[in-house]
Amino acid sequence: MIIGIIGLGLIGGSLAIDLRSLGHKILGVSRKQTTCEQAIARGIVDDASTDLKILSSAEVIFICTPIEAIAPTIQQLIPYISTDTILTDVGSVKKPIVDVVAGLWDNFIGGHPMAGTADSGLDAALSNLFVDRCWCITPTNNTQEIYLNILTNIITSVQAKIIFCQPQEHDQAVALISHLPVMISSSLIATCLAENDLNVLNLAKIIASSGFKDTSRVGGGNPELGLMMAKYNRQALLTSLYQYQEQLNAIVNIIETENWSKLNERLTMTNQGRTEFTICQQ
Amino acid sequence: MIIGIIGLGLIGGSLAIDLRSLGHKILGVSRKQTTCEQAIARGIVDDASTDLKILSSAEVIFICTPIEAIAPTIQQLIPYISTDTILTDVGSVKKPIVDVVAGLWDNFIGGHPMAGTADSGLDAALSNLFVDRCWCITPTNNTQEIYLNILTNIITSVQAKIIFCQPQEHDQAVALISHLPVMISSSLIATCLAENDLNVLNLAKIIASSGFKDTSRVGGGNPELGLMMAKYNRQALLTSLYQYQEQLNAIVNIIETENWSKLNERLTMTNQGRTEFTICQQ
Repeated sequence: MIIGIIGLGLIGGSLAIDLRSLGHKILGVSRKQTTCEQAIARGIVDDASTDLKILSSAEVIFICTPIEAIAPTIQQLIPYISTDTILTDVGSVKKPIVDVVAGLWDNFIGGHPMAGTADSGLDAALSNLFVDRCWCITPTNNTQEIYLNILTNIITSVQAKIIFCQPQEHDQAVALISHLPVMISSSLIATCLAENDLNVLNLAKIIASSGFKDTSRVGGGNPELGLMMAKYNRQALLTSLYQYQEQLNAIVNIIETENWSKLNERLTMTNQGRTEFTICQQ
Repeated sequence: MIIGIIGLGLIGGSLAIDLRSLGHKILGVSRKQTTCEQAIARGIVDDASTDLKILSSAEVIFICTPIEAIAPTIQQLIPYISTDTILTDVGSVKKPIVDVVAGLWDNFIGGHPMAGTADSGLDAALSNLFVDRCWCITPTNNTQEIYLNILTNIITSVQAKIIFCQPQEHDQAVALISHLPVMISSSLIATCLAENDLNVLNLAKIIASSGFKDTSRVGGGNPELGLMMAKYNRQALLTSLYQYQEQLNAIVNIIETENWSKLNERLTMTNQGRTEFTICQQ
């Protein structure tokens, strides 16, 4: 097939590498001419351009730009493509995108691959990034089965596991397991840094061990990603933050009242409950 | 030297392995006869017993029991040892222990090696557990230099890095970087498990990725450890929990009011601030 990829970063670049190696013709679009040239030189794409016109022959187009650029990109793309072109995205939030794009293009199917590394950009792109990773797909009642099949076949071919879900359910689940952790982890770092007693703060910096390292990792990550989560998934994130505040208040109250049997019950519940999350069984 | 070790678990057992390989005579004490027999059979100790009397010739004794057993153990030990015997412990809380034990034994120096694995018990004991790990030591004004030198030489010989600190500063620092993370991580798991919408909960369990795995790790750990932290470091933990609640309220307010420049500033601050913690530079 002829497959277009807009945004040649970690996700777009990695997808291009896998799909081209499977025999598809890959056409890339990047804002930067140098990225287009690098992608061609490294054999990641068959051809690339800063102009969306290059995608006029594409049968399926993956929009791998940052969230805020997805809808504007589709608007600019429409004049160049035929009505049976399948559009999909890889944004980490689905309802705000699906709501807007549904009015722009009938043949749009929202998507979100649960894959990534700490690095970004075309230099970070690598083969087999999606193997055994979940890839959420949010078809609507208007989605035609023939187009859905084409998209799921492509995603399955890079060995991702397809998860069908509603946009709103996706956004609530992602708020809980991805966006909430960033905010509570960032707040941990902020709490330590705000320590008034400099002897305590300096000691904390020296003796912090793997528990602090793991719990603070996502809160110490790329600020732009955290900002996008909060902007585009604001309501679901706030809902999960309010639920989290309740749980935190409960554990503070248990420790204040020295209700040790209740604390033991609660820590046992979270010790066992964590194993219900697929990733934690690995 | 003749070194006694009470409690042949992960820490006591690992310490015995290293010190015996350095040529010291190691006498072990465990509550269980089978553990004593295993420690002798595996060559971890020279001799072992369930009776504290075996330690009458020891020059230095490491008390590696759970926190609540440290003071009672010292009380039982006193009839068998001479006044120049150095006693130390490896408890993760220092002020409550140092306060009580100071009245029992002049020659006690509190300690806390920042080492551990997910496993426990003598089977988990291994050599070189303390290499490059911090080992906090809390001498008091009454501590005699000659005894302090003996203890620090032993700790340095297992290649740990000695950090001198006040018991109270130690407990506040440990509350921030070790005990607080357990409570906020446990509250994350509790928040997810309390999700009412079963579709969202089941989706969350399937699509959770490395961010959730890392942030939930210590909250999904051994419930007994969390319980001990809260019981024996209650006041310092509560102080850090109140400070954390303030930081969390601040970020919730920023997201509620859509103050994106402030959120960017905050996430940038925690992104950069995290690198000031030694472990996060590795």
